[in-house]
Amino acid sequence: MINETLIRTRYAETDQMGVIYHANYFTWFEIGRTEFFRELNMDYRELEEENILLPVIDVGCKYIRAAKYDDEIIIKTKLTNIRGVKLIFNYEIIRKSDNVLLAEGYTKHGFVTKELKPINFKKKMPHVWEALNQSIEGEDKSAI
Amino acid sequence: MINETLIRTRYAETDQMGVIYHANYFTWFEIGRTEFFRELNMDYRELEEENILLPVIDVGCKYIRAAKYDDEIIIKTKLTNIRGVKLIFNYEIIRKSDNVLLAEGYTKHGFVTKELKPINFKKKMPHVWEALNQSIEGEDKSAI
Amino acid sequence: MINETLIRTRYAETDQMGVIYHANYFTWFEIGRTEFFRELNMDYRELEEENILLPVIDVGCKYIRAAKYDDEIIIKTKLTNIRGVKLIFNYEIIRKSDNVLLAEGYTKHGFVTKELKPINFKKKMPHVWEALNQSIEGEDKSAI
Amino acid sequence: MINETLIRTRYAETDQMGVIYHANYFTWFEIGRTEFFRELNMDYRELEEENILLPVIDVGCKYIRAAKYDDEIIIKTKLTNIRGVKLIFNYEIIRKSDNVLLAEGYTKHGFVTKELKPINFKKKMPHVWEALNQSIEGEDKSAI
Repeated sequence: MINETLIRTRYAETDQMGVIYHANYFTWFEIGRTEFFRELNMDYRELEEENILLPVIDVGCKYIRAAKYDDEIIIKTKLTNIRGVKLIFNYEIIRKSDNVLLAEGYTKHGFVTKELKPINFKKKMPHVWEALNQSIEGEDKSAI
Repeated sequence: MINETLIRTRYAETDQMGVIYHANYFTWFEIGRTEFFRELNMDYRELEEENILLPVIDVGCKYIRAAKYDDEIIIKTKLTNIRGVKLIFNYEIIRKSDNVLLAEGYTKHGFVTKELKPINFKKKMPHVWEALNQSIEGEDKSAI
Repeated sequence: MINETLIRTRYAETDQMGVIYHANYFTWFEIGRTEFFRELNMDYRELEEENILLPVIDVGCKYIRAAKYDDEIIIKTKLTNIRGVKLIFNYEIIRKSDNVLLAEGYTKHGFVTKELKPINFKKKMPHVWEALNQSIEGEDKSAI
Repeated sequence: MINETLIRTRYAETDQMGVIYHANYFTWFEIGRTEFFRELNMDYRELEEENILLPVIDVGCKYIRAAKYDDEIIIKTKLTNIRGVKLIFNYEIIRKSDNVLLAEGYTKHGFVTKELKPINFKKKMPHVWEALNQSIEGEDKSAI
């Protein structure tokens, strides 16, 4: 499964170079994750209320073309890897007007409690884990 | 008492107008408050750990001259009003290089618990309340 | 005319109090302005390309209830005042799920060139000025 | 040469997990770069005024321990690679109180004009290029 979410860039996100400040792309990745969970009928807010957090432990982003103020942007999010204690998302940032790829990146997450202690997500929430895992397998099949 | 805190503006804080984005001044006010408490030997982090929060309930800012990237900025913070359930800070944002006033503003705060229930700060922490109140009186005297 | 724009709050916008950090409401106001112009068939990006900027010169916001992560928020924006050199917008921030007013505020703007020199907008762009002015008058009539 | 710059984390930088939101580390890296240039007697603001920009084209960060509100943070910045059209910085984010490494990352930059056209920095500013290159060689020697 690939979630596609549409946003519009904000004036606040620009910098004096006249383009979107690079760190904001990680905020867009986070929007993509939230909507990815929603598309799987999960609610990241509820996960937190059940004392499961997904802190970011490793991120990267390559910037190809600059996003500008008031651009409509498609965030494509997919889960590419899930283990008992870790998951990895991949993202593409696409300018809607001409379908140009502006950036691509990834984020790696751990599963921890609010006290920041690691938890085995597969054991704690097997059904949710399975649904996440399915989103990858489904993707692999469609790629054949 | 007036706390003076020096910061340097960040590239991330600029916008495509080539100046500091206006909402960031409220972040600077917040830095001023933190340092104001520190100067009074209080620690805002500890207040929160004792389940006392100071959410913002009303703010305003007038922008006179634009701050730019890499400017050194002096944040002047003083407490102007304290009641049992509310306090008001006033701020001046000054460009260090030529001492020009760039902006002035205020923030009004309530005292609440982490569950966002109002608390009577004067009763709960009379010594801290008194120290805060003294910071205003001292200021009034020095103004004579 | 009142523009209504729907956004969803972001994790990045929260703070450790567990609510949306107060300065972000001014970013939402800015989104409201952009969409207000779009609804009038203007494009704030084009205004800037014609060397007309609308820097913020005075703002205020009252916070009534806290917005939280993943809330859907309606930004209501209307122009309440326009002169040759200045305009004022008013905003309401409403939680969509229960229609509760979370905050209300205003922003006052000047008309300047990229070199930050004031310009008489009414003279420079009479048609745009008139359309903006109509948005207020139309509002007044509908209020009767 | 390794530049060390001290900052204090801001309330605005926290999120509802109670730690600093991960994207803000890239803002800290940018502060490190600015101060790195200053230590070499360059001024990034002046570079921009001479129509030389250093947009970010690739970034990464590994998060080891979480920074929290009001922490004092040391940003260690060094240049690790410079070519005619590209440079790479490496960063360490260190908590001052106990000298613990919280995160490490890198940013890769191109040299472009304000119109976002690539320029050969070595040819355009040979003296500056040389000083930057020296900062790496000096580092290598001190590492022996």
